[in-house]
Formats: sequence, structure tokens, C-alpha cells
Amino acid sequence: MAFNLAPLQNLIDQFERMQGIGHKTAQRMAFYVLGLSDTQAREFAQAIIDAHTKIKQCKVCCDLADGDLCPICKSDARDKSVICVVEDPRDVAAIERTHEYKGTYHVLHGAISPMDNIGPDQIRIKELVARLNDDTVEEVIMATNPTVEGEATAMYISRLLKPMGITVSRLAYGVPVGADLEYADEVTLSRALEGRSLI
Amino acid sequence: MAFNLAPLQNLIDQFERMQGIGHKTAQRMAFYVLGLSDTQAREFAQAIIDAHTKIKQCKVCCDLADGDLCPICKSDARDKSVICVVEDPRDVAAIERTHEYKGTYHVLHGAISPMDNIGPDQIRIKELVARLNDDTVEEVIMATNPTVEGEATAMYISRLLKPMGITVSRLAYGVPVGADLEYADEVTLSRALEGRSLI
Repeated sequence: MAFNLAPLQNLIDQFERMQGIGHKTAQRMAFYVLGLSDTQAREFAQAIIDAHTKIKQCKVCCDLADGDLCPICKSDARDKSVICVVEDPRDVAAIERTHEYKGTYHVLHGAISPMDNIGPDQIRIKELVARLNDDTVEEVIMATNPTVEGEATAMYISRLLKPMGITVSRLAYGVPVGADLEYADEVTLSRALEGRSLI
Repeated sequence: MAFNLAPLQNLIDQFERMQGIGHKTAQRMAFYVLGLSDTQAREFAQAIIDAHTKIKQCKVCCDLADGDLCPICKSDARDKSVICVVEDPRDVAAIERTHEYKGTYHVLHGAISPMDNIGPDQIRIKELVARLNDDTVEEVIMATNPTVEGEATAMYISRLLKPMGITVSRLAYGVPVGADLEYADEVTLSRALEGRSLI
């Protein structure tokens, strides 16, 4: 019994369920909440509800969106003939930070991983193939993580798309092998985009 | 613009405001929320509201309570003749984990710190003095942090209480000097309780 007050313990438990948050951090976070004003606490709770209910998936690229389409798919300034395929919405944010890429994205929401029972049908590959039917797309850049699963996914998708006459390229190995794309710095990601090679 | 979706960015900002939470951690936490089920997200938001509205201060010892009195002040098993004075509710939890102390507590909610404009009137010293008027209290144990501010607070309170004929003692220097009481281990805290000395 660290704190035998149910509402406090419950809040600590809620924070502790998050990945990478230990008991002490969860405690500190709960005390932060206790120290907020009434308005701030209500805003915090509302932010959770809002993010959860208002954020959907873009109907085109499966990235996060607050309407039917994400801001990138909605924009006329983006080159619709190039699609950059990533595993996760955070990878879109990482590539956007380079300010080098003007095409669109496709978010797979995962990578093929037979060990975890994730096959091609469990990630958004069908949705990607559906986007290639109207001939506007000329190139697909595979920007999955440089891990075994990411490589396997890139290989699988390139074999699927090449017979359709689409150029499939892969991020250059500027990205450090074995790491998470999310943590790559802007320069490394820019290099990787520049040096992309045909699969 | 990491994420140009207002509800998501707002949630990330909410998490990032917490002490010790950086941008990447706040992002991960926001994505954790997006991954919750509807019920779980509502429970999480409700836990914040509940903790904030239901947790009050105990009318006797100023510790956190979900009613007028905290569980320790309510309990008949606790020795009302000894008061252990701490800076923070987390310090109560730390001392409770030793299972050595059977008296009651008084939470100051801070320590005297002229640098931060915190004087004796900004912390709960008046409430402590008010508890000593009915002659049941025989000893006050000063368990403020072993820092400059904690020491100053202990000295101030001991000078205030000694003329009232109350024994005032201080935690033994089992607690490592300069550290936070909250992080002391159970054995160190037990030793410090055993070896307390008159001020």
C-alpha cells in the first residue's frame, strides 16, 4: 500500500500502464495532476477524450487525420505521383521534419512479422495497392524501418508492385541499421531520401 | 510542426508539461492513448477528474485524504501522542513502507525556503501548532528532508515547540544528506527512525 486512497492509486495505475513509465514516474505524474487547477485538470481529461475520439485514419493514406483525409492528402502542393511507405504515423512526422520530401505517404501500421503473427493482411498493404490503380502513381519509396521486419515488408511490397510497372525504391542506408526510423536525425533522413536505390 | 492535428498536438503538449517528461516520451504517451479502447480512454480521463476532485487534504494532518480525515488520522490503532512532521505526502508513503512507525503524521506541504519566498506562513506550521493544544501529543519527530531547507524548517519548528514542553526529535542521519526523503530505502528509513535524537 503506497497510497491507500483509491482515486489516487487508480490514477497512478493508469499512468503506470504506459510503456516506459515506472512506478516513481507514475507517482510524480499523479501528483502533478493533483497540483493542477480544476480547469487544467478538466482540460487534461478532455484532451485525452478529444484525441481519442477526433483522431481517425485518413481514408487514402491511413495516416492519422482529424477528418476523412489527412492534411497531406488534402494538400494540392503535394506530389501525388510519389508515395512514401512507412510503418507508423510517427515516421511520417520524422520524414516531414526533413522538409525534403514533397510526395504523399502510406502508413502500414506495422510490418510483416511472422513471429508476432503479423502477415501482409494484418497491415495496410491492400489499401496501398488500391491507390495504385488509377495510374497517377509513378514511384513508391519504401521507408519501413531498417530492421528485419521492415526489410521483409519492403521486399514483399516491391515484389507485389513491380509487375504493375511501378518504380519501387528503398531509403538509402543512411539510416543506422537496427535502429528505429522515429529516432533518426533530419540530416541522416535527408541523405537516405537522396540516395534511395531501386529494389 | 511535428503533428499538425490539433487534438493530438494538444494531448502531447499536456503530457509534456509534466516535470521530467520530454517531447519523445510525451509523443509515446499520446500514441498510447490513441491505442486505447473507447472505454479505456474514458476511464483514463475519468481517473484524472476523480483524483483531482475526490482527493482533499486531511483536516487534522494535511495529508491527502478522500474524506475529511485521512486513513491514518481515522485509525484507532495509531498512537496519537507522536506526530511525525514531513514535507510531502510522498514522504508519508515512504515512512509507512518501513512498517516501523505507529504514530500520526503532519504534512507541511513544503519547507521554509526564503530563496523561493516560502516562509513559515506558506507551509502548514499553524495547523501543526493547533494540534498541540490539547496535551495528547508528547513527541514531535521532525522528518523533513535532510537538505538546507528541511534542516531550517526542523530548527524553526523545534524552537517554536520546545517552550510548549513538547519533546522534539529529528530523524537520525541514516538518511543520506542532500537526497530526497522520498527515495530513501526502507532499511535506511528504519535506522533513521530508531536513532532519532533530541534537537
